[in-house]
Amino acid sequence: MKHTELVVSTIRCLGADFVQQYRGGHAGTVLGAAPIAVSLWRDVMKYNPKDPLWFNRDRFVLSAGHACLFQYIMLHLTGYPIWTLDELKRYHSPNFKTSRAAGHPEIEQEGQGIANSVGLAIVGKQLAAQYSKSGFEGLINNTIWCFTGDGCLQEGVGQEAVSVAGHLGLDNLVLIYDQNKVTVDGTIDACFTEDVPLRFKAAKWNVIELDLNSPNLPSPQSQVSAVTEALLAAKAHKGAPTIVIATTTIGYGSRKANTGPAHGQPLGDEEVAYVKTKFGFNPDEKFVVPEEVYSHFAHVGPRGEALQSEWTALLLDYSKAFPGEYAELMRRISGKLPNGWRDLIPFKKDLPTVDQPTRKSSGIVVEKIAPLFPDIVAGSADLLESTFVSWKDMVEFQKPESSRGDYSGRQIRYGIREFAMAAIANGMAAYFPVHPGREGGGILPIYSTFFMFTSYALNAIRMAALQKLRTISVATHDSIGIGEDGPTHQPIALAAFFRALPNVRLWRPADAEETMAAWINAIGEDEGPSVLCLSRQPLPLLEGSDRQGAWRGAYVVHPEPSNAPPKLVLVATGSEVSLATKVAERLSSSSVIPDLPVRVVSAPCLSIFDRQDLEYRRSTIPSDRALVVSIEAWTSFGWARYAHAAASMSTFGHSGPQAALFEYFGFGVDHLTKVIGDWVEKWSVVEGGKRQLRIPGIGDFEELLDGPLH
Amino acid sequence: MKHTELVVSTIRCLGADFVQQYRGGHAGTVLGAAPIAVSLWRDVMKYNPKDPLWFNRDRFVLSAGHACLFQYIMLHLTGYPIWTLDELKRYHSPNFKTSRAAGHPEIEQEGQGIANSVGLAIVGKQLAAQYSKSGFEGLINNTIWCFTGDGCLQEGVGQEAVSVAGHLGLDNLVLIYDQNKVTVDGTIDACFTEDVPLRFKAAKWNVIELDLNSPNLPSPQSQVSAVTEALLAAKAHKGAPTIVIATTTIGYGSRKANTGPAHGQPLGDEEVAYVKTKFGFNPDEKFVVPEEVYSHFAHVGPRGEALQSEWTALLLDYSKAFPGEYAELMRRISGKLPNGWRDLIPFKKDLPTVDQPTRKSSGIVVEKIAPLFPDIVAGSADLLESTFVSWKDMVEFQKPESSRGDYSGRQIRYGIREFAMAAIANGMAAYFPVHPGREGGGILPIYSTFFMFTSYALNAIRMAALQKLRTISVATHDSIGIGEDGPTHQPIALAAFFRALPNVRLWRPADAEETMAAWINAIGEDEGPSVLCLSRQPLPLLEGSDRQGAWRGAYVVHPEPSNAPPKLVLVATGSEVSLATKVAERLSSSSVIPDLPVRVVSAPCLSIFDRQDLEYRRSTIPSDRALVVSIEAWTSFGWARYAHAAASMSTFGHSGPQAALFEYFGFGVDHLTKVIGDWVEKWSVVEGGKRQLRIPGIGDFEELLDGPLH
Repeated sequence: MKHTELVVSTIRCLGADFVQQYRGGHAGTVLGAAPIAVSLWRDVMKYNPKDPLWFNRDRFVLSAGHACLFQYIMLHLTGYPIWTLDELKRYHSPNFKTSRAAGHPEIEQEGQGIANSVGLAIVGKQLAAQYSKSGFEGLINNTIWCFTGDGCLQEGVGQEAVSVAGHLGLDNLVLIYDQNKVTVDGTIDACFTEDVPLRFKAAKWNVIELDLNSPNLPSPQSQVSAVTEALLAAKAHKGAPTIVIATTTIGYGSRKANTGPAHGQPLGDEEVAYVKTKFGFNPDEKFVVPEEVYSHFAHVGPRGEALQSEWTALLLDYSKAFPGEYAELMRRISGKLPNGWRDLIPFKKDLPTVDQPTRKSSGIVVEKIAPLFPDIVAGSADLLESTFVSWKDMVEFQKPESSRGDYSGRQIRYGIREFAMAAIANGMAAYFPVHPGREGGGILPIYSTFFMFTSYALNAIRMAALQKLRTISVATHDSIGIGEDGPTHQPIALAAFFRALPNVRLWRPADAEETMAAWINAIGEDEGPSVLCLSRQPLPLLEGSDRQGAWRGAYVVHPEPSNAPPKLVLVATGSEVSLATKVAERLSSSSVIPDLPVRVVSAPCLSIFDRQDLEYRRSTIPSDRALVVSIEAWTSFGWARYAHAAASMSTFGHSGPQAALFEYFGFGVDHLTKVIGDWVEKWSVVEGGKRQLRIPGIGDFEELLDGPLH
Repeated sequence: MKHTELVVSTIRCLGADFVQQYRGGHAGTVLGAAPIAVSLWRDVMKYNPKDPLWFNRDRFVLSAGHACLFQYIMLHLTGYPIWTLDELKRYHSPNFKTSRAAGHPEIEQEGQGIANSVGLAIVGKQLAAQYSKSGFEGLINNTIWCFTGDGCLQEGVGQEAVSVAGHLGLDNLVLIYDQNKVTVDGTIDACFTEDVPLRFKAAKWNVIELDLNSPNLPSPQSQVSAVTEALLAAKAHKGAPTIVIATTTIGYGSRKANTGPAHGQPLGDEEVAYVKTKFGFNPDEKFVVPEEVYSHFAHVGPRGEALQSEWTALLLDYSKAFPGEYAELMRRISGKLPNGWRDLIPFKKDLPTVDQPTRKSSGIVVEKIAPLFPDIVAGSADLLESTFVSWKDMVEFQKPESSRGDYSGRQIRYGIREFAMAAIANGMAAYFPVHPGREGGGILPIYSTFFMFTSYALNAIRMAALQKLRTISVATHDSIGIGEDGPTHQPIALAAFFRALPNVRLWRPADAEETMAAWINAIGEDEGPSVLCLSRQPLPLLEGSDRQGAWRGAYVVHPEPSNAPPKLVLVATGSEVSLATKVAERLSSSSVIPDLPVRVVSAPCLSIFDRQDLEYRRSTIPSDRALVVSIEAWTSFGWARYAHAAASMSTFGHSGPQAALFEYFGFGVDHLTKVIGDWVEKWSVVEGGKRQLRIPGIGDFEELLDGPLH
């Protein structure tokens, strides 16, 4: 295997060349971890370059996203059709528009890769428990390989995920820690001096250590062999996930090795020449891949095809032996949702008519669909009783030995780890392939906590939006309605972020009917995450609520009483819609304008409403012909797009009983009727003996604050 | 000491009573950890109830915020004047408006308490290194006690903070882990099975374990003694922080002990009676505190006064021996900023005239003030070279043995731990007392990372806003201007959250002059955090930029050329202001309206502009008389308040060269001139032979998207 040295050197020189080409990118890991790359892609991982989405392939997660060049090079050498040498040459190129070789692949964010890989490993375990049968163990038996650097292990989200994986005993997960001990700012001794093996042992992981700088491993060939031995041992280990701690040298071969600049700066022409000379390459030639290097990987393609063929044959046998399971698995792989899933969700006429919190209405959906819908994996960050994402006879996803559940279970106890929970959900959602015509079937991660605490997971929800991963965040206790827990628990500005972000649908349903609408939309839209903001407190089932309307983002829930066009429009969301209805009724009769025609619009999902055509938006909220006031117990930021004034929060919340807090902050019927009535008066003029309303302009946007007791 | 048992029982019965009174709150920890409370407040902590803000007192951080009732009771028993029994009776009361006994104290958030306490410990160490002298070791020698539950140790932010504290060897920090192994959803075995002692040993902590359920500790008295012994050993331990892992029983004494409901639900009348009977109290009496219980704490007040008197005497001696240090310390304790600090920041005429990134302009301020301004403690999450928060001859805050710095150092290597970084900064900012007339002196935490990554720390910045803690977040690489790192690194919606949140000032300066304005405001405003969004790419020093204007939040940076009132107003922020200026010049001559008077407004801080009076806002952005277009390379959310249209991002970013990305997303001068010109045409009509502009209304808000290549 004399070629190994040539292969490793080639990869290193390619790394130096690609980064130097446009003077940008990260070469350090390519130089440092090249032996690991060769081992992984040549000798260890199960995959088929000709069918990159083969279902039972191993999954590779690059948590150290800056090191993506390392991955791109391997995809080229192992024969992925799209990863030509020309494609690689576009890394950091000005011709970025046609390039796949992004500076950081989008499925990546600091530390979240570990959590994503835990999500993938959970699904792998779960599918195996659900579908593998005696004699068919090979149906789903892949391994999740996560490549991580020194940074990922410092991030809290990585730590949370490590703790979860150890607890669950995910032995299909291998974390490869490229321990070069250098980050952007230099050696990690400056800030990270944990005993990493001990830390992972504490979290119940299997630990394998390997020093590629050791004099016992003097050649690339010996290094690759040692890595392969370690990785295969990791893969074979049962009962716990494994971390392989591989000590490497960042920027190996360069005189900048072991320094911060080796992490993310080009080496410079002179240093690139030095590296090439050192590895026996011609410093005047660029992007050189000797034929022996390709032939070193020549068996990878045929091996992958053979593995997939065997699997396909196994699948055929499985289809005969277990036709029901087979059909369901195929349905999931195809991305279809189960037939008739919408019929499981009650129509309005079948909903309870008593006042009930929307979190409880949401629970109706979970209880109906989860038992019959194997795609659903629910979970909570220690608030399961409060967020209603449980169902009768549910099984927990736990180690079978724990006697708390088993790997077929679909309820995950995430612990008090919101960020990992959301990032794990993203990993799960990424398990199934993306097909044209996909409906979002396969896996449907639902996770829950109080809305305020989704801020801990905010970047994971953002990553779901960026990657168009379909997850559902059940975010209860969505306002000051949480009561005595106080302002730390009371969101007032968080919705602004989700409403501003593309590909996210933030729902705030007003009652049970709109909650059904939110769920149907969240399940049925196949792209991007949904955040369901749900009330702790009971809300009435509104006479005018309507799922068809809700699906347009906003609609008239309480029309003006006569045929006269509305002169005042109250736009509200969630718990404030029923309040707005009461205020509207009072204002119709008590305002300075006799028989004022007041309309109430419910706007459960502004992101959807924003995308409606102007005609619908204008006919629903006629801001050119009526005064428009928004009513929402959050800050007013963003409402000026539709409203001339906002009844909103301008301060943080307070600890106190729920109903009293609404009064305190000005959301009592009496107070709101008075301030909006005063405002109508302010904007009215007497013309021709008759009082008329004027329409304010953009700069007139006003906040109708605060409560009478403030 | 027969009274100990009575004391512990009294506390337990009080806990049961207060929660039962209004059927809300958390009694479980009061019942479980009462012996710990007695030990801490009676025998261990250094404080003076008569002067709760005595500077050299120990600090107590309640990370398990739900357990606050436990703290309130102790504040009462030890004689804090404001914590009367009547005050405690307002816990969860409908009379919440006059109550101090909030459901969760505001200085708390899940897991962040650990990080806050690390911040306090850092300041304690630092002040001791800066001011204590031989013979004056007692000047600053307090201990930081952090009380934490099972939840805090699961949160990533807690894990990050634990790692930082271990690395820094903060031996003035003691974490008391009330290990009752029950959280809201029940026993933590369902989700948390780490070996906690091993985990802390891996992080270089000293570990003391103590089982209060042990048969060796059969009585409350033996338990309190054992706790005291452990806590004093922890306090005495040198070179590392200590965790005291105290196993307790949540809801001890009740039949609901060791269950989820014991965490956060009232026990019920019957169970309260059971508990009282068990502890020898009369079940028909409420809120009973026998006189012996008060007398058990009678010495605490005099002891505290004596300790403070001794300290005051020491301080007097110190003032004579070290008058310079004394004066500086007193200045800091009084909350004054150093005299003449503003003069350190260059005037516009002294700023570099070459194009320069605002992150580098920001660096000018840090370099000028940090060496002379001991209040400043800077730091970065592994991006020190990129965020320019370093200075000449700075010393790192490190263990002296590390040979990297010492405890007098003011540059902290936070590692890749953004959330802990911000939460630690909050802890630092909370170290100094709040005085009337405070200017924000004492401690000024500056911390830095890329703007996108502040989303990892979002909830800590929110907590700073809620608690009005003055911190400065240097948030560089604020847009697609980061270039090839791609969409994971390119914020587009994050600003919406900070703009929506009260008490935060999000700054996006357009050039070096506005960067000076942002810094002066961030330092000089004594309440709440500032986030400085700074460019990676160079920006010109604008002719019209002006700090006085910037301090009003928005101002005319490029006036319309003639005396004619502006017909088109371009409002921009940060890197888009210089672009807007170029577009304005082009539009003046090329628009369908001859000699169109175009004004450019720079809006570096919308939160401040929002608070200006209507007259100033209207005179700056005359949205009733001119078309207004905002230009910002983020999403348009929120701009409808001031603008009729927005040139903005409606999708995530892309990996590519910085300048090319601005073109790609439509922020090139040519493209922007064309689309805004078209829009002017669309909103113009010919009246009396002359083309005039019409003013759109609220519902007409339009996005001028996207780039020509999109």
